Amino acid sequence: MASSSIFNPPSSTTALLLRRTRHPIHVGPTSLRFLTSQSAPPSSHLVSFAASATEASVAKVIDGKLVAKQIRDEIAAEVSRMKEAVGVIPGLAVILVGDRKDSATYVRNKKKACESVGINSLEVNLPADTTEEQVLNYISGYNDDPSVHGILVQLPLPSHMNEQNVLNAVRIEKDVDGFHPLNIGRLAMRGREPLFVPCTPKGCIELLHRYGISIKGKRAVVIGRSNIVGMPAALLLQREDATVSVVHSRTSNPEEITRQADIIIAAVGQPNMVRGSWIKPDAVIIDVGINPVDDPSSSRGYKLVGDVCYEEAIKVASAITPVPGGVGPMTIAMLLQNTLTSAKRINSFQ
Amino acid sequence: MASSSIFNPPSSTTALLLRRTRHPIHVGPTSLRFLTSQSAPPSSHLVSFAASATEASVAKVIDGKLVAKQIRDEIAAEVSRMKEAVGVIPGLAVILVGDRKDSATYVRNKKKACESVGINSLEVNLPADTTEEQVLNYISGYNDDPSVHGILVQLPLPSHMNEQNVLNAVRIEKDVDGFHPLNIGRLAMRGREPLFVPCTPKGCIELLHRYGISIKGKRAVVIGRSNIVGMPAALLLQREDATVSVVHSRTSNPEEITRQADIIIAAVGQPNMVRGSWIKPDAVIIDVGINPVDDPSSSRGYKLVGDVCYEEAIKVASAITPVPGGVGPMTIAMLLQNTLTSAKRINSFQ
Repeated sequence: MASSSIFNPPSSTTALLLRRTRHPIHVGPTSLRFLTSQSAPPSSHLVSFAASATEASVAKVIDGKLVAKQIRDEIAAEVSRMKEAVGVIPGLAVILVGDRKDSATYVRNKKKACESVGINSLEVNLPADTTEEQVLNYISGYNDDPSVHGILVQLPLPSHMNEQNVLNAVRIEKDVDGFHPLNIGRLAMRGREPLFVPCTPKGCIELLHRYGISIKGKRAVVIGRSNIVGMPAALLLQREDATVSVVHSRTSNPEEITRQADIIIAAVGQPNMVRGSWIKPDAVIIDVGINPVDDPSSSRGYKLVGDVCYEEAIKVASAITPVPGGVGPMTIAMLLQNTLTSAKRINSFQ
Repeated sequence: MASSSIFNPPSSTTALLLRRTRHPIHVGPTSLRFLTSQSAPPSSHLVSFAASATEASVAKVIDGKLVAKQIRDEIAAEVSRMKEAVGVIPGLAVILVGDRKDSATYVRNKKKACESVGINSLEVNLPADTTEEQVLNYISGYNDDPSVHGILVQLPLPSHMNEQNVLNAVRIEKDVDGFHPLNIGRLAMRGREPLFVPCTPKGCIELLHRYGISIKGKRAVVIGRSNIVGMPAALLLQREDATVSVVHSRTSNPEEITRQADIIIAAVGQPNMVRGSWIKPDAVIIDVGINPVDDPSSSRGYKLVGDVCYEEAIKVASAITPVPGGVGPMTIAMLLQNTLTSAKRINSFQ
């Protein structure tokens, strides 16, 4: 999980500015830019600083698309180095059951991402009426296949299958999704190391790392407690010595608690739930939500928004991920990273 | 984890009073009693009510010794019923390596507790220079022994052994300590059920249940994040829909955060760390700490105190566990319960 900042900057100055909640340092005027479209921003915006919120400025935008690209470049270099050194190419097997269009799109994107970094992708598409036993047979085959280092079962599965049974069948050494309870248990325990960390929460923390945002000793609030994002994100933040509170549907005063956070990770699937008034000035916001909302002005008839009201948040926070272009691109990058890690570990290559 | 209140009362009235933080209901004067010695209090104190802290009254004392006794009685009845119905007696194997006096005392107490409820206890005492392989052989034997339903390795082990290796060797179906990462992972995940919940945090939650203290929607603060108490306690509280914050050594403002809690679980091993000023009026306090401090007036030269300053806390809280006589007795009761549960599960007895 350790990673150094690869940007030039985030320099130590940036890190200092991002810590300014405790020790205000005024700089300015600064070159502020933030994403207003899906087009990739110029990388120079990474060196922009957010001035203090009290100066009516806007937050630094955390560019997940750009970070993901840099991570994929790093992975591509490592894949080449490994191939040359030991002749092994990392392999990811993806099992898709049924004909859900969204699942097919996700699988296609994963396949493309693998190709872009030189990871072999094996894909099996099974009809919706496949039996659980047949799926288990495929998993068993990939478990034993030395050219496969990661196995991913695209969810959701058809309702006649027991998801737990299927996921538990994946060998822990190839569980690149990191959802096996043994991985989650190790993630929760001090002094233990999970073999894999779930991709989306790992991507959230990686963004904080790469932007030089310190976590240790900070108040962090995670909104949502799902098995795939909220819960492991809270465990990861705690591993990095944040003081973590988890807010969920049964929380009576989510706004009040969220307002105490230096770092907010929102992963609840409620469009624009977190308003500007929920945010402490200069907080850092990682928005995992990707929610379609009606938008007559769009040719598609909808647009994607996060769990955080971006327009309000950007005026209060010191840094924020956009939607899309924030956490989204990081998930697949982390999947590739987990697959590379697995191939290295299985082949004792460092 | 579900459990009904066995007391007569905690009635619904008690539960109401314990919820009065939001909806003040004034009753009184009430018959207030609290523990001033280690002697078992009369059970009638369980029907006492704490008046509002603003009336300068004291907290209800949560009597772990009495609750543990009632649980042991319930277990004894179940052990008898099982023996009569299917001829199976639950068995707990305890492995003690080395000659630490405190460990020997713990093991002796566990043995006595087993006997008191009719659970078979098998004990093996190995010299400090036993090899890890020899310990693993014993574990392997107990793993295969159908008369053993729970295996407990007394910690700490001598330093030449790898604790993780040894603990991981215990079959998950007999891991009555609940420390296996697979159990912890299932505890963390929604929709999954651990085979066993670690005994001390389970005892904390059981005390809340048996006193009719509702957890759902409450703010809970866990002080300490150890693998054996703090972390699983936080996961348990979250499973019961509390909004949980975990405070630890890196937390910059533990007092401020703790003061927001409706329920405090303190498990940090710092005598009297939590002062009266840390406590929200009418909070419920579960004190896991058992710390020896110098006491010239005691014949032993020391006394045991909790992580919470009892004398101050009792004036602010609505309910509190004493030290000793609070959480302590619950740990062994939960170990017996886990052993019974295991024997029932292995023998498909309900």
